[in-house]
Amino acid sequence: MKILIVGATGTIGTAVVEELSKRHTVISASHHQGDLQVDITNHNSILEMFQKIGQLDAVVATTGKIAFAKLNEMDEKKYQFGLNHKLMGQVNLVLLGLPFINAGGSFTLTSGIVSSDPILYGTSAAMVNGAVEAFTKSAAIDLPRGIRINTVSPTVLKESMDKYADYFRGYKPVSAKKVALAYSKSVEGAQTGQVYRAGW
Amino acid sequence: MKILIVGATGTIGTAVVEELSKRHTVISASHHQGDLQVDITNHNSILEMFQKIGQLDAVVATTGKIAFAKLNEMDEKKYQFGLNHKLMGQVNLVLLGLPFINAGGSFTLTSGIVSSDPILYGTSAAMVNGAVEAFTKSAAIDLPRGIRINTVSPTVLKESMDKYADYFRGYKPVSAKKVALAYSKSVEGAQTGQVYRAGW
Repeated sequence: MKILIVGATGTIGTAVVEELSKRHTVISASHHQGDLQVDITNHNSILEMFQKIGQLDAVVATTGKIAFAKLNEMDEKKYQFGLNHKLMGQVNLVLLGLPFINAGGSFTLTSGIVSSDPILYGTSAAMVNGAVEAFTKSAAIDLPRGIRINTVSPTVLKESMDKYADYFRGYKPVSAKKVALAYSKSVEGAQTGQVYRAGW
Repeated sequence: MKILIVGATGTIGTAVVEELSKRHTVISASHHQGDLQVDITNHNSILEMFQKIGQLDAVVATTGKIAFAKLNEMDEKKYQFGLNHKLMGQVNLVLLGLPFINAGGSFTLTSGIVSSDPILYGTSAAMVNGAVEAFTKSAAIDLPRGIRINTVSPTVLKESMDKYADYFRGYKPVSAKKVALAYSKSVEGAQTGQVYRAGW
């Protein structure tokens, strides 16, 4: 398969590239590095990326920024930041990538544990992850040509515990290598409309 | 209690006003009618509404527009419409209303069945409802002064079947009167962080 990984240089992205490149042709994309550069908040940037690649079999998104703050420090702008980046960035990869995906291909997006198991500072993350997950379930019944869509919801990463441990006390961290298996299941399996819990 | 109902002239809003005004002082708001007019996509309009009301005990939102279309007819603008109206409109009622809510008061928002049980034409509705529900669970652990938040997720309304029956074949419709009970449970009960399924 020819597989595009957007966010390929992040902690999860790197592990997904490693897992999938054993068996497939992987094209890596990220904001500043990788085979291709892309700004997922920019319609034309996404479209140009797909035009450069041409037809492909799978798109994996392991990217998307969010603002973290207590509810009383949040405002519309901070929520909009996450909606533009992690939500609509990923959704636009689906909308704009659709014409380039071969029949039976797939999209795999990324959410996260805090939509189901909330933390302080996480109302925007919860909102965005909940939106990505419900979009996935709904889009799965509406995609043409047998194209599939799933989302991976990782818990906190082992590799991020130096930065995030205080926000995730009591959460069992998971390695990026183990999370990458869920992306493999989505891309190389046949399921659709699923939210794969990775490490929880 | 002094209760603000935003979207008070809609099908659900009317039923909620009827249920809650039996026992409480209800202030009705909507875009063009009611005691107060408000545009929930406008920060200043929401703030002015709360300033006119002063302190209150509960805010109920039964409002929010969404675009319905097949995935291949959707674009960023159509998703943004729902994010601005039904998602951020309701979230801004929470953010801007918070200083006006008495200790132990509550917010009750509205989502809908299609985030869990998707229909064609419903990817934006699913996205927005999923976001509202996850925001609710997350905000519940972060609200100060014992303030609570819940969301009501109605299935399709009996009163809307003349317009929506074709989109909801096989879904058992529920009366607005029955849905209104879930809002009563949220406002007059003590639970928080809940998504009440109404009629499904």
